[in-house]
Amino acid sequence: MALTESEQMWSELGIDLASHGQLMNALGPIYRDIYLSQKNRPKGMGFYDFVVGDIHGIRVKELREHAKSGGKVVATYCVFVPEEFCWATGAIPVSLCAGTAFSIPAAEEVLPRNTCALIKSSFGFKLGRLCPYVQVSHLIVGETTCDGKKKMFELLAEHQPVYVMEVPNKRGPAGRALWQQEVRDFKAKIEELTGNRITAENLGEAIKKVNARRREFKRLSMLRAADPAPISGKDALLATQVSMYDDVERETQIMKTLNEELEERVKNGEGVFPRGAKRILVSGSPMAIPNWKLHHLIESAGAVVVGEESCTGSRFFNELAPEGITDLDEVVTALADRYLKTNCACFTPNCERLDDIIGMAKTLKADGVIHYNLQFCHTYANEAIQVDKALEKAGIPLLRIETDYSDEDAGQLKTRIDAFLETL
Amino acid sequence: MALTESEQMWSELGIDLASHGQLMNALGPIYRDIYLSQKNRPKGMGFYDFVVGDIHGIRVKELREHAKSGGKVVATYCVFVPEEFCWATGAIPVSLCAGTAFSIPAAEEVLPRNTCALIKSSFGFKLGRLCPYVQVSHLIVGETTCDGKKKMFELLAEHQPVYVMEVPNKRGPAGRALWQQEVRDFKAKIEELTGNRITAENLGEAIKKVNARRREFKRLSMLRAADPAPISGKDALLATQVSMYDDVERETQIMKTLNEELEERVKNGEGVFPRGAKRILVSGSPMAIPNWKLHHLIESAGAVVVGEESCTGSRFFNELAPEGITDLDEVVTALADRYLKTNCACFTPNCERLDDIIGMAKTLKADGVIHYNLQFCHTYANEAIQVDKALEKAGIPLLRIETDYSDEDAGQLKTRIDAFLETL
Repeated sequence: MALTESEQMWSELGIDLASHGQLMNALGPIYRDIYLSQKNRPKGMGFYDFVVGDIHGIRVKELREHAKSGGKVVATYCVFVPEEFCWATGAIPVSLCAGTAFSIPAAEEVLPRNTCALIKSSFGFKLGRLCPYVQVSHLIVGETTCDGKKKMFELLAEHQPVYVMEVPNKRGPAGRALWQQEVRDFKAKIEELTGNRITAENLGEAIKKVNARRREFKRLSMLRAADPAPISGKDALLATQVSMYDDVERETQIMKTLNEELEERVKNGEGVFPRGAKRILVSGSPMAIPNWKLHHLIESAGAVVVGEESCTGSRFFNELAPEGITDLDEVVTALADRYLKTNCACFTPNCERLDDIIGMAKTLKADGVIHYNLQFCHTYANEAIQVDKALEKAGIPLLRIETDYSDEDAGQLKTRIDAFLETL
Repeated sequence: MALTESEQMWSELGIDLASHGQLMNALGPIYRDIYLSQKNRPKGMGFYDFVVGDIHGIRVKELREHAKSGGKVVATYCVFVPEEFCWATGAIPVSLCAGTAFSIPAAEEVLPRNTCALIKSSFGFKLGRLCPYVQVSHLIVGETTCDGKKKMFELLAEHQPVYVMEVPNKRGPAGRALWQQEVRDFKAKIEELTGNRITAENLGEAIKKVNARRREFKRLSMLRAADPAPISGKDALLATQVSMYDDVERETQIMKTLNEELEERVKNGEGVFPRGAKRILVSGSPMAIPNWKLHHLIESAGAVVVGEESCTGSRFFNELAPEGITDLDEVVTALADRYLKTNCACFTPNCERLDDIIGMAKTLKADGVIHYNLQFCHTYANEAIQVDKALEKAGIPLLRIETDYSDEDAGQLKTRIDAFLETL
């Protein structure tokens, strides 16, 4: 049987076509069930339906053409990696975080079983030759935000070039000095990779582009404060997930159109759920595509997710990078400081995150918070204890959930979520 | 019933006497079974039998008297904390790492279940009011060597003053600069705590004292290369464990006497196991008192443990600190560099550890290596994969074991160890 154009491309990228075909075939019905079955969806989500419908096709083709014409593709796993350096040098950053149980068995042939699903799923995409994004990348950029990823990158480096940025554990003066140096070293690395110098001008342009996308996501975030909520949490999450590997300017445009539609909805009091539906803020570990499990459970129970305090949420877009600085060294310093404000559970202490959660819960008028942590993620699991105390003090109800990518506990989670919603 | 002198002391320290009594009562029979049942033990181990027989008594009394006369006690969890600053200022460092399942239930009321036994056991000692060493301490010094400990210290700080040193993730120039600063900050902290200035003189004296103990442990390590081994692995492990909370000069003296006895044994071809007994190097996670599980299983199977590539082994004593430097700043720099040579799995990459393991296996004429990692310890579990590859390349047999402090898997481990020894 002749290969389709996409299959031909995947084959050239070294993808295991048979296994990959199974994955693609599984995704369609899941997406239909979770996404396309929703009522009152904004029209602006059409783009995302299109993107997910061809998730390993058109974007990979773009990246490949970019590579063929001499451009570089930089793969990342974390919102600490300053994407601005990539855009400034004409490289394209793409997130490799993976959210499917499908690729975990391949990873478990090597990685310790007691590793979080996100790490196993991502590593399994490489080992199982399932991910054209990793295949098309010239450099993988890792970081040291958790023990599991930190050590996984050593194993990944046996397959493909990997560069690891150190994120400090403490944010005092010594930690800041280290991070400043790490950001400068990464800048030099990207310059070396692309052969292009970073200047105050091209970096300033890149910052403006990324900020424009951040502003649209902040705007979306504010629109979700309306009651009824103009968009489901599932759809908002998807937009964030996709923009982590999509073109920055296209995403800005798509989000702008979506936000205009949502503003109209808010003005008209239209929403995806009835006014007065229970409003939930989700906080914790990131949710990579296609990890829609928790959002789907919450919204299937009749509540609406109004925000994500996570790396696939507020931590991705809340802090703008500094604009208008004309001295290169100053802009790099300010950019590094911007990234250090990411209130990740990797930091000790990380009290700022507690303020973020309470602030978001209030702004978004959440009735309760669901803390989500991937099993075996020590940092978020421990921080859940602090979140619990802080929210109790603030009088905000909390449900703590620990899970993975399997559906095995869906029934149990449903029961707990239903019970939690009852109490709100 | 009247309290004994020790009970009176424990009571004053806030210990839960009933629960603590259970723990003490359990330890006696375990020690008799594991330690006192050994044949051909060196006479020099008598001191350690005495110490364990009164494990929360005489040493705690010394620390308390020290505190009463204005001295400080500094509790630590890691070989990265430069104990020399403590000795230099008249403070006494003691290790708080705990190795018993007894204190885990108390910890699990707070900490995530998926936390390694060492962290749970240590935290449970505080929560369950079971440990007079933590109670008598003026300052607890944590570090950032793993996600689990890093975040546990935040919770511990709710109970007692905690100071956290950042250990970098990478050992490049930026990581070294950070560590140099952290060591200087810690020096200032200890000066503030004790009210005593650290000088080139008192620090030089402290270095000499700690090095003297390190030299005796290195000497012991070399003596274990003899066949037959003059001392059991269990006994050597115990000596290391105890010296982590005992007085540095007393330990040096005790170890000197022990080593003289062992030299005599080696000269006479005497040992604890028959010549030709299978020789095992244990590598991996630390073993805190009274975690003698793996050593006991190995030696009960007729093999002898000839070395520990671990924080309760070579990483504790292998590197000497710099002596004879007269400039304070220079000696602090050199001391910080000495600690950065600790080849802990927290570093990425950490290839030096692979060289250490192979080097020790050869020097100690090990027939095989058993890699030990505590369940849920991501760094050692991941590094085990690299150890596996490196040892295969070097032609050294390896058995990888993951376990915790429970005895539930003892039968299974025994079977695996027996099978491994058969193949050697």
